[in-house]
Amino acid sequence: MMHSPPPDLDRVFAALSDPTRRALIERLDAEEELSVSELAAPLAMSLPAVMKHLDVLEKAGLIARQKVGRRVGCRLTAGPMEDAMGWLARYQRFWTESLDRLAAALETKG
Amino acid sequence: MMHSPPPDLDRVFAALSDPTRRALIERLDAEEELSVSELAAPLAMSLPAVMKHLDVLEKAGLIARQKVGRRVGCRLTAGPMEDAMGWLARYQRFWTESLDRLAAALETKG
Repeated sequence: MMHSPPPDLDRVFAALSDPTRRALIERLDAEEELSVSELAAPLAMSLPAVMKHLDVLEKAGLIARQKVGRRVGCRLTAGPMEDAMGWLARYQRFWTESLDRLAAALETKG
Repeated sequence: MMHSPPPDLDRVFAALSDPTRRALIERLDAEEELSVSELAAPLAMSLPAVMKHLDVLEKAGLIARQKVGRRVGCRLTAGPMEDAMGWLARYQRFWTESLDRLAAALETKG
């Protein structure tokens, strides 16, 4: 197991702010491991453009790439996603209470 | 209750990618409602710079501003944070399993 760098929420959230990068994460979640060409195949963009998105995901620690022969395999890495979730979870209390208030308000009206 | 616009994860994650904006959210979570000047007071930046960050948070739907007389009050709004959390939660299975594997690996070594 490699030592993880400290969480960098700036990079993680910035990486997640792009729909192509979120779609790449969704595919890697469904398939576990895919090559760069497999990831690029369904996308309407050039291979270099896809590689740039993968660079951003890798620098944020969201994916890891491993070269085996001529194939570059990509996988999700868990830590940064968990850090982002941990940051948001601190506000779960806040929005759960907001939804409770909304539900209560709707019941009063109903 | 106002009608919420559809979630815009691009804007929400981009808004969360800045440490000043995350700090503003943390203060609004702790205090519930603060004026723009109260939010700006402890920050080492100009009021216009703070206002720009508040604009980004408001456009992402993360805060709402309301002017009462000369005071502009800011509050958190729950929806977009919940959407971001919902997106990340889809991968909770993935990283929970990764942590389980890590725990198992550490036990084997121990």
